[in-house]
Amino acid sequence: MILHEARIRPQVLAQPGVSDRYTETRTRSLALATVLSESDATLQSMEDASPAKWHLAHTTWFFETFLLRDRLPGYRLHSQVWPFLFNSYYEAEGARIPRGQRGMLSRPTLDEIRDWRAHVDEAMGQLLDDSSLAPLLELGIAHEEQHQELLLTDIKHAFAQNPLGPAMFEGVPRPAGKQPDGWLAHPGGIARIGHQSPGFAFDNEGPVHRVLLEPFELSNRLVTNGEWCDFIADGGYETAALWLSDGWGWVKQGQQRSPLYWREGRDGPEEFTHQGWQALDPDRPVTHITYFEADAYAAWAGARLPTEFEWEAIARGQDTPGFEAHAGNQLEMLDGAIVPPVPVGTGELFGDCWQFTRSSYLPYPRFRPAEGAVGEYNGKFMCGQVVLRGASCATPRGHSRPSYRNFFYPHQRWQFTGLRLARDV
Amino acid sequence: MILHEARIRPQVLAQPGVSDRYTETRTRSLALATVLSESDATLQSMEDASPAKWHLAHTTWFFETFLLRDRLPGYRLHSQVWPFLFNSYYEAEGARIPRGQRGMLSRPTLDEIRDWRAHVDEAMGQLLDDSSLAPLLELGIAHEEQHQELLLTDIKHAFAQNPLGPAMFEGVPRPAGKQPDGWLAHPGGIARIGHQSPGFAFDNEGPVHRVLLEPFELSNRLVTNGEWCDFIADGGYETAALWLSDGWGWVKQGQQRSPLYWREGRDGPEEFTHQGWQALDPDRPVTHITYFEADAYAAWAGARLPTEFEWEAIARGQDTPGFEAHAGNQLEMLDGAIVPPVPVGTGELFGDCWQFTRSSYLPYPRFRPAEGAVGEYNGKFMCGQVVLRGASCATPRGHSRPSYRNFFYPHQRWQFTGLRLARDV
Amino acid sequence: MILHEARIRPQVLAQPGVSDRYTETRTRSLALATVLSESDATLQSMEDASPAKWHLAHTTWFFETFLLRDRLPGYRLHSQVWPFLFNSYYEAEGARIPRGQRGMLSRPTLDEIRDWRAHVDEAMGQLLDDSSLAPLLELGIAHEEQHQELLLTDIKHAFAQNPLGPAMFEGVPRPAGKQPDGWLAHPGGIARIGHQSPGFAFDNEGPVHRVLLEPFELSNRLVTNGEWCDFIADGGYETAALWLSDGWGWVKQGQQRSPLYWREGRDGPEEFTHQGWQALDPDRPVTHITYFEADAYAAWAGARLPTEFEWEAIARGQDTPGFEAHAGNQLEMLDGAIVPPVPVGTGELFGDCWQFTRSSYLPYPRFRPAEGAVGEYNGKFMCGQVVLRGASCATPRGHSRPSYRNFFYPHQRWQFTGLRLARDV
Amino acid sequence: MILHEARIRPQVLAQPGVSDRYTETRTRSLALATVLSESDATLQSMEDASPAKWHLAHTTWFFETFLLRDRLPGYRLHSQVWPFLFNSYYEAEGARIPRGQRGMLSRPTLDEIRDWRAHVDEAMGQLLDDSSLAPLLELGIAHEEQHQELLLTDIKHAFAQNPLGPAMFEGVPRPAGKQPDGWLAHPGGIARIGHQSPGFAFDNEGPVHRVLLEPFELSNRLVTNGEWCDFIADGGYETAALWLSDGWGWVKQGQQRSPLYWREGRDGPEEFTHQGWQALDPDRPVTHITYFEADAYAAWAGARLPTEFEWEAIARGQDTPGFEAHAGNQLEMLDGAIVPPVPVGTGELFGDCWQFTRSSYLPYPRFRPAEGAVGEYNGKFMCGQVVLRGASCATPRGHSRPSYRNFFYPHQRWQFTGLRLARDV
Repeated sequence: MILHEARIRPQVLAQPGVSDRYTETRTRSLALATVLSESDATLQSMEDASPAKWHLAHTTWFFETFLLRDRLPGYRLHSQVWPFLFNSYYEAEGARIPRGQRGMLSRPTLDEIRDWRAHVDEAMGQLLDDSSLAPLLELGIAHEEQHQELLLTDIKHAFAQNPLGPAMFEGVPRPAGKQPDGWLAHPGGIARIGHQSPGFAFDNEGPVHRVLLEPFELSNRLVTNGEWCDFIADGGYETAALWLSDGWGWVKQGQQRSPLYWREGRDGPEEFTHQGWQALDPDRPVTHITYFEADAYAAWAGARLPTEFEWEAIARGQDTPGFEAHAGNQLEMLDGAIVPPVPVGTGELFGDCWQFTRSSYLPYPRFRPAEGAVGEYNGKFMCGQVVLRGASCATPRGHSRPSYRNFFYPHQRWQFTGLRLARDV
Repeated sequence: MILHEARIRPQVLAQPGVSDRYTETRTRSLALATVLSESDATLQSMEDASPAKWHLAHTTWFFETFLLRDRLPGYRLHSQVWPFLFNSYYEAEGARIPRGQRGMLSRPTLDEIRDWRAHVDEAMGQLLDDSSLAPLLELGIAHEEQHQELLLTDIKHAFAQNPLGPAMFEGVPRPAGKQPDGWLAHPGGIARIGHQSPGFAFDNEGPVHRVLLEPFELSNRLVTNGEWCDFIADGGYETAALWLSDGWGWVKQGQQRSPLYWREGRDGPEEFTHQGWQALDPDRPVTHITYFEADAYAAWAGARLPTEFEWEAIARGQDTPGFEAHAGNQLEMLDGAIVPPVPVGTGELFGDCWQFTRSSYLPYPRFRPAEGAVGEYNGKFMCGQVVLRGASCATPRGHSRPSYRNFFYPHQRWQFTGLRLARDV
Repeated sequence: MILHEARIRPQVLAQPGVSDRYTETRTRSLALATVLSESDATLQSMEDASPAKWHLAHTTWFFETFLLRDRLPGYRLHSQVWPFLFNSYYEAEGARIPRGQRGMLSRPTLDEIRDWRAHVDEAMGQLLDDSSLAPLLELGIAHEEQHQELLLTDIKHAFAQNPLGPAMFEGVPRPAGKQPDGWLAHPGGIARIGHQSPGFAFDNEGPVHRVLLEPFELSNRLVTNGEWCDFIADGGYETAALWLSDGWGWVKQGQQRSPLYWREGRDGPEEFTHQGWQALDPDRPVTHITYFEADAYAAWAGARLPTEFEWEAIARGQDTPGFEAHAGNQLEMLDGAIVPPVPVGTGELFGDCWQFTRSSYLPYPRFRPAEGAVGEYNGKFMCGQVVLRGASCATPRGHSRPSYRNFFYPHQRWQFTGLRLARDV
Repeated sequence: MILHEARIRPQVLAQPGVSDRYTETRTRSLALATVLSESDATLQSMEDASPAKWHLAHTTWFFETFLLRDRLPGYRLHSQVWPFLFNSYYEAEGARIPRGQRGMLSRPTLDEIRDWRAHVDEAMGQLLDDSSLAPLLELGIAHEEQHQELLLTDIKHAFAQNPLGPAMFEGVPRPAGKQPDGWLAHPGGIARIGHQSPGFAFDNEGPVHRVLLEPFELSNRLVTNGEWCDFIADGGYETAALWLSDGWGWVKQGQQRSPLYWREGRDGPEEFTHQGWQALDPDRPVTHITYFEADAYAAWAGARLPTEFEWEAIARGQDTPGFEAHAGNQLEMLDGAIVPPVPVGTGELFGDCWQFTRSSYLPYPRFRPAEGAVGEYNGKFMCGQVVLRGASCATPRGHSRPSYRNFFYPHQRWQFTGLRLARDV
């Protein structure tokens, strides 16, 4: 039913146990912070972003609150005040520091947060083998994986504000390879959408349900920087007819002229990466674009964005039983060090850049959030946001699957957002 | 397949010819303005709203621009400058006065606008019988009908700012009758969605396509003021868990405590209507609510909002061939005078209040906007808005059909917005 | 002590009695409104400005509240609600409509306001001869005179928002005559500052006190449009060094390039006047400038702004006993009609344009506001504003004197503000 | 002519040479930072405030730019980019990082800044004995002293945002002693105002000129916390009649109820200090108030604020030839450590809290700013601000004199601002 292309067939990885994954995840978070100074880790560059230190603390708060406090008899909070500082948005968990004030937390220090992490990790040792807690544990791990990606995109945004353009990692990005054009055809029909394999998934990925699709094609690759330059050269940012009304307002108000993190350098266009300012590689996928820009580009290209159901149907066609992880360009550690997250390839369904869909982030039929505070995880954000599918170079390997739904507001672009075209047939 | 209930079966009306409908529509617009003073007609109370005079002029601009200027050889514009004043949002038609400045147009006067209308109507006489122009004519008529509803809701908003609370119409609203509870069941399956009868429809109502529905039920009536009072009394506006995250932010920031236009009067709650401040009737449908409030109420009631496809499937079950108009409580003239638009009933699918769906306003599969300026009519707004279905007491009779898609942002509520619950079965 | 120059010696006018002045003032207000439509009179173009209708009502409210209600036994308020609508800022008089909402008052109508005025004028007849009320009466008259000027500048601002650029008055402005350059020298010494003649003055003009002046010179004329064009051509709006820090911020944020109401017309620069758009006359005084612009111009010209004490010392040198009125280009009626207010001359101390001083608006030594609501008239505004001296073409004749202190914020320029240079000797 | 009171007679200190003062000042800056972590030193809590690290760098930039770069042949800039980062507002020195972005500078690190300081200090060694540079050197030293005070008030503001309420210094403040009431009488007459002794002064303290004063009295002490509590208890923040119009708007908009840094603790009112949250001591001077609050309090107390000339006349009456420094409660080091800056006394003219005057910050007669970039130091801020006199507990000893003019906007209160009453006699 689907035209498989070897290039985008994901590699299936063995899935380690939950206890190992807990350890691995907690270790990775610390590794992300090793290259940061105390003050790097305290920066908050906008209300959407949080300090690296806050991410390290908030993920720890999650385990302390929902596992240790609620499930480990006799556990005493490491601090009475820190929950107020490091709750993100759980109304059921009481008051919290205003979001825009997170960058004011020079105290507690990074070392104090590390101590808290160690304290919590030790106590967690008593719960890791309790299979009744596995769902909450999995949620906590997945939650921390999400914050690893946010930590990376948030610090990138903060560093980009600094005229010195500090690099978080040494070296230069791998060169990009050019991906030949092609379309993945789908004949339409009724698709089963939603998480349907044994492993963990967020509540918003279910329930499984049927969706009726018309025949369509999905591009076999992401749109590239080079193509985006063509769009700009053709007046893309000056042609109202290409844009959604809200998008055109966004262009006009911000005098937008390019993706985020582009600048005109002395020797041509450059983009800011975790490895500092780099010459713009035309073969790398374009990234850090808004939904508005993705939609306008698609209109300019005579195509459209896929729906999230179309995207999942293609991804699912390449799926195999037990499939839970993917081996594209995603966040990973090599020899104990984090590999710098830079999108360099365009051919993978998972990795490099999140891909905009035209679908609004809405509940699936018969969706019900979980009871209690963890029920606030996803459902309450189902308004005004759009779904992105796939994964990015900053998404931890193991944190991606065909049913995964990422979501952001149409004007946001500090994530590794990219674009894969679709068209009717 | 559908459980018909006689109560909500719409009455089929004979559809007059396009020429008659043109005249009828243009006459109705003028009738709306007869009770307004020159300065009433110039008020703009917020950027979302426009002066009554502006509506009268803008609808005329539409016919002059897209019909007379473009299609009637030798036609000379009534004014060279007015198009700049009365273009709404058509980028292809060039520059225009900023939206928030429309209330500054004390000139041209209401009489000058009336003269323009007469001038255009006379010239239009030469085009009304040209069947090749029928589609554009129908669009112009439907466009003016939409602005009649906006004129009414805009002037209501403006009058509500005045501490004197002026009434646009004399008298008091008809008393509301209580509608017995009941649910309209739908067995699910594949529904054909979109405009599929011979008459006019907006481009956003097509193309016709299939949607797979799960079994569900739709309430046979709108939620009432009395029920909303229960929601408030039960702490509805103070319970974060009921609200979408954006909705809770809206509640907090605006210290929201009730629908728009409610106030505590000396003898109990009151609501502002086109007939001035009135005691709140518990049996009238609740109206002037945001999507946020509708969603929170549904959560509180243990139900949910319908999708726009569910709503249409129910409406279509009661449809008959050639069906194009409905006889609920919609805008109409009686003895040459406008009947005051107040929602009083709860049982009709069409009329009284627009009904929120949980569907985002998105293009249907294979949707393509028309070429040129009129193509800006709908497509460019398909971002961030939600679909409402049905019609309201301010929607001109004849301007409603099962496939009709109205749309607003989640925070807007100056339209006659209401709520009909749905639930899974 | 002062070098008198015949050209700027004011003409002394006989001062009519308070009863006549009441009638004259009330009549002039109505005359201002005769050329306005109902909707012209309802426009509010910004929070600083008020609708013409509001001015007519507020001045009436002043007499009804502080004279009739408080001093005429048995007087019944014309309306219980209108005081809420037409109180401006008197906290002691209770709640009031938010300032920015004044433009929403399409009701009461202009005719209803006129009826109120007639009603109040008739009742006032019983109080006009009560000499114990003369001070309050004088205050009410002076208050209404101020609002006549505001009515004119507010409607000018509103009309300027309209792309049609409506003229309030027919005809074209009188041509400006060129004033030869010259300086009025003052030897310095101790000057007696403040109101010191028998007639009425606002509380902020006293108490009389001594100020020590150093020798200085004041230009014998206002700066002209032609000179301002030189300032612009010399990069005045692009040279940070000329500007106060707040002024430079104002330039940058608003991309300021010229005085208010200037535009580049097809045949050269134009300015908007009460007689519509007019070619910029290089010999007319520049007007509608901010304090920031006046200060920057003075720096560019190698001069400075005078202090208010210097200005008054010059004006007082030309004063004569009983002097209370001036005959420059000020607001007046001719043959029952208002003479269009346009600044055309540069030589008079009083009339054409208000003149910025470098003095902040502060209380004079031993100043104490009056008791009660009328005490809010001046004192509470003594923060953050600058003093302007003289009078403008929109200031009613009789409403000007050497001690008169007008005041606005440094960024405001919708009044007829202008500039007369000073320098140290 | 003045009634001297021994209590407020300042102690005259011997003035060290400029070279010693350079060293002492540079050392003190470093001492201020020793207790700060890397991230403490990077915090920027609002646009008015700057990171501690930025202060350390900016003061160094001043010496590098105006002394080393401009006056030391062959000097090479330590960095080409840092001047862009650490220029504050000198337009003549080119582009700079937006003020609100200073908190994004996690790089350069505190150690890198310290290296820069050492590098500059070493190079400066070659210029310290060049007497032709003494005026610039004195300016640089005075400039750095100002930034020491700002560093302290800025970090206090940042720490106050942290719910942990970190203390910058250990220990608790010294207890306050109660000062008996009394008034310092001045008979009026002509006073010589402005800097008139041999030492350094800012350009805004001159030229010396004469001002005519009426008889008045100045309180012999600052207003205390206890008195402020009485003001609050008496409805001070709820009584419109006490407030300037802008002040009342500030109260309403911010729902102001007390000075900055006050909170209701479990055991009564507390205030945030550099030593953390402390019980409010009724005998300490009230501090962290706006001009609005100072003015309202004075009105409530039946007094008024002094003019800056009155204040200086009193201070000057206690002056002696060569007087340049004062020994009140000001910033100093003891045994190599900074003494925590907390206002504890009320009797000194210099120290504890800056004192609001009712004078606007305006140029003295014949004032002319210096040529070039250093001319931007003071003159361009002479608009919209009010003058404060004296010194605070955070003002370095030696950085105060009778002619010193501090200035802030009426709404600002993150400095150690306080209040000393005056009255007419």
